[in-house]
Formats: sequence, structure tokens, C-alpha cells
Amino acid sequence: MSALSSVNKSVNARVAIRSGEFSGHTSGLAEGHVQGNVVILPSALAHDFLCYCQRNPKPCPLLAVSEPGESLLPSLGADIDIRTDLPRYRVWRDGVLTDQPTDIRQLWRDDLVTFVIGCSFSFEEALLQAGIPLRHIAQNRNVAMYRSNIATTPAGVFSGPMVVSMRPLSASDAIRAIQITTRFPNVHGAPVHIGDPTQIGITDLSAPDYGDAVEVMPGEVPVFWACGVTPQAAIAQARPEFCITHAPGAMLITDLLNHELATF
Amino acid sequence: MSALSSVNKSVNARVAIRSGEFSGHTSGLAEGHVQGNVVILPSALAHDFLCYCQRNPKPCPLLAVSEPGESLLPSLGADIDIRTDLPRYRVWRDGVLTDQPTDIRQLWRDDLVTFVIGCSFSFEEALLQAGIPLRHIAQNRNVAMYRSNIATTPAGVFSGPMVVSMRPLSASDAIRAIQITTRFPNVHGAPVHIGDPTQIGITDLSAPDYGDAVEVMPGEVPVFWACGVTPQAAIAQARPEFCITHAPGAMLITDLLNHELATF
Repeated sequence: MSALSSVNKSVNARVAIRSGEFSGHTSGLAEGHVQGNVVILPSALAHDFLCYCQRNPKPCPLLAVSEPGESLLPSLGADIDIRTDLPRYRVWRDGVLTDQPTDIRQLWRDDLVTFVIGCSFSFEEALLQAGIPLRHIAQNRNVAMYRSNIATTPAGVFSGPMVVSMRPLSASDAIRAIQITTRFPNVHGAPVHIGDPTQIGITDLSAPDYGDAVEVMPGEVPVFWACGVTPQAAIAQARPEFCITHAPGAMLITDLLNHELATF
Repeated sequence: MSALSSVNKSVNARVAIRSGEFSGHTSGLAEGHVQGNVVILPSALAHDFLCYCQRNPKPCPLLAVSEPGESLLPSLGADIDIRTDLPRYRVWRDGVLTDQPTDIRQLWRDDLVTFVIGCSFSFEEALLQAGIPLRHIAQNRNVAMYRSNIATTPAGVFSGPMVVSMRPLSASDAIRAIQITTRFPNVHGAPVHIGDPTQIGITDLSAPDYGDAVEVMPGEVPVFWACGVTPQAAIAQARPEFCITHAPGAMLITDLLNHELATF
């Protein structure tokens, strides 16, 4: 596939999203392209949140930060307008979810700063391409996520536990998955834990805090990655007066290719 | 340390070995330098053995192969003479250990081919430098090695099980150790297994087939690497009419630096 037709795929997806034609989950859309978690905060909180991401790069790998009031994100795609280009948004006031619109033009303020954070879709594509089966994808479920007892490094009002996603793998696939995801530090990188869940404060794998449970079969080892839900949990705890995020699964589709994120 | 003084360290070690002054284990000698397992076979078997190494690169990562009858190994060190530069040799006739000399000049034949195979000392140095504790080194023991049920790919008369070495590590150190040893494919590379030993046919970790047992503490995971004893086991099984190897622990010290072996 040419680079041009590849970019067309992400542009076309955004056109459908922008027009309101598409407001669902982006998993599987514009295959090969980087998708991002989105957090939009008033500039008064932007510095603290930026520090929080900088201090917690595994759960909060920053792909882009906008200027205050600037709705374009040219480093991620020439035509991206963050006010229209997510399929669905969540609007939070004092930490309470108040609305889930498909467009935030009416809510835009000139003090808003957009943060785009890498997401595991990118490394999952690399794992699948390497022939490593991922059960939650095979079973068409959301990945299982847990609040661990690993504390993130606080910054200003932002703090909280690291949320981790879990994928059960055979031992040999786990080794390969560590190698592959190490290449992708901008989308959570290498796992933070393998094996015994109780070592990171998870007592029951069948009861995830977010997403859907998947079975760990005999001979498999649970492998835990830092998860992009971590910043959302930190924001929920901080209860900012105003905040907009993507709705779960409705990510920003960028023109970046997953392969571009590989460090070697 | 300058490159010159570094090479002097390996040259000085070989001078002491060559003179007969030193005939012990080489662990810790000429720190920073690559050490190698040595196999010397008649040229009639050399092609099969070379194929065996090529087909089983994790247990048999080849650092050098000599011309038949050639005792020098210039790619590993300008002055290396394989007839004098090992602290102690083992001489095998029809698969039976017949002698353990400190010099093989009297046994040299013009059809002998030398194979030098990477050894875990190199990656252990990288692990220790990364702050990952290795219990067998802390306890001054040989690493624990086991015959696994992983079959090597046969070549001619050479076949047999993969021998693996085991190091108990915390989960986070295991993840880091996989990353680090991935960088060193010429010295066994990434692990072949983590976790449940029975999955690779090992029923009792406290009873290694070679080396010394080390305890796996609560919260640790056993991590298994392909081991350079594998080719020795294949040779023992093949029972060649004539063969010379290094004596256990008495390796060839080369001028190569461990850091030179890193692939990225």
C-alpha cells in the first residue's frame, strides 16, 4: 500500500467521524494507524497534567500536546480538529460525567489544552502481526483492566493507582510480547508485571475494574501492561471543574503509522 | 579504561593460561571480555556440527569457526592459539573422557576444526551491570542447568535435548532481563521459557542435571535460557571417534568486548 492511500484511510475515517456518520468504537478502523486517548483540560491544570504524564510515561505516553485554545493537532494529522474528530466525547464537570456529545464545538474555550496519549491498539497490532493470539480480541471483548497497587508519581492534583491491562499468554508468547512491546515506548512499552497478580495488588482476575474478564488458561501466564485508563482515573480523582475526554473505545485516529512508533 | 589496556587484560590472561601458570575457572577473569565454549572436531564431522549450530542458534551461537588444521583464531584475538590458550581441555575418544590436559599441542591434527560458541558470562555481566542480582553468582555457585524436553533440530549425527540454565528473578527483573538478553543473540539471547518448569519437562528444580541448585524464593519466577552445554550433550550422544572440548568453566578468553556483541 502506498503512503498516500494509507493516509487516505485515516483521513477517510475522520471525515466519516466528523460528519457524524460514525460515532462508534474505533477499534479496527484505519488499520495500521496510531489511535490516541484524549484528555482536554483548562490551561490552569495543563502544567500539572503534563508533569503527571512526564513522571508516569508508561501509563501516560504523550503523543501530542496542543497550544491553549488551539483545536488543531498538525503533528498527528494535517486536518485534525479535536472539536469534531472524535466519534464521541465525555464531558466532566467537577468530576461528574454530564454529557456524551459527538461534537464539542459549542463547548470549546480558548483556555483548553488537548493531550493525546498513546493507546495499546498500536502494540496489539504488532503482537497480532507477530502471530501472538490475543484472547480478548478473538472473543470480541474489551481488554481486562485492573487498578493495581502500583502508585503513580503524583503531580499537582493528579495522583492515583496505575491501572493495568492484562493479556494471558503462553510463556513463549509472553517473552516475544515483551520484546515486541519494548519497541513501542510511546504506546505503553514493555509490561510492568508478569505472573502472580497478587504481587501488584490484584486479588481476583475474574473481576476486572474496567473492561471484560478473559480466562487465563492452564499453562498461560498473565502479562500486565500499564494502561491509558490511568490518566482518566487520576482525573476522576482530581475532579477538575471542567474536562473533556474521549468516550471509552472512541479514540482519535491519527495519520501516524504504528510502525513509525517503533524505536528499533 | 582505554581500548588498549582493555585488550591487554585479555592478552595477559591468555599469557598466564598459555604458560601453564593458570589452569582454573575463567569466571571473573579479563572482565568485560567475551569468553567462549570450545568444541574441536575432525573435519569429517565439522559440516554436520556447523549445521547443528546453524539450526540451533539459541543454545549454539557460533562466534568463530576455524579452517581445518588451523590453530589460530584471528577474529577473536590476534595471538590466540587454541592448542595452548584454554586453562584445561577435555579429550574424548568414542564419547569417553580420556584425558584433561592443559595443552593439546601433542594431540593436534591437521584435520581438526575449532568451534567457539558464545557463553552466558557475557549476558550475565550485562544483567549485573543493570542491577539485576543473580543468586548463583552471589552464592558463588555454578548456574543450575537442566535437560529440557525441548528437542534441538538434528543435523547428521548431532541431536538431543536443549539444555537450559535457570536464574530465579523477580517479575520486574525478569522483564528487564528479557529486554537485556534480547540484545545479545550471540550469547544465547532472550530466554526460551519463563515460569512453570514442567512445561519444558523439568520436574524438580532442586535437582539440576548440571551445575548447582539455587532456591527460587517466594515472588520470584524461574527464567530459562538456552545453554552452551547443549552442544556438549549432543556430542556426548554422537560419540565421535575424537573430540576436544574446554573443561567446564575453563573457557576461551577472547579480545572481543561483551558490549560489542550487543545488537542495539
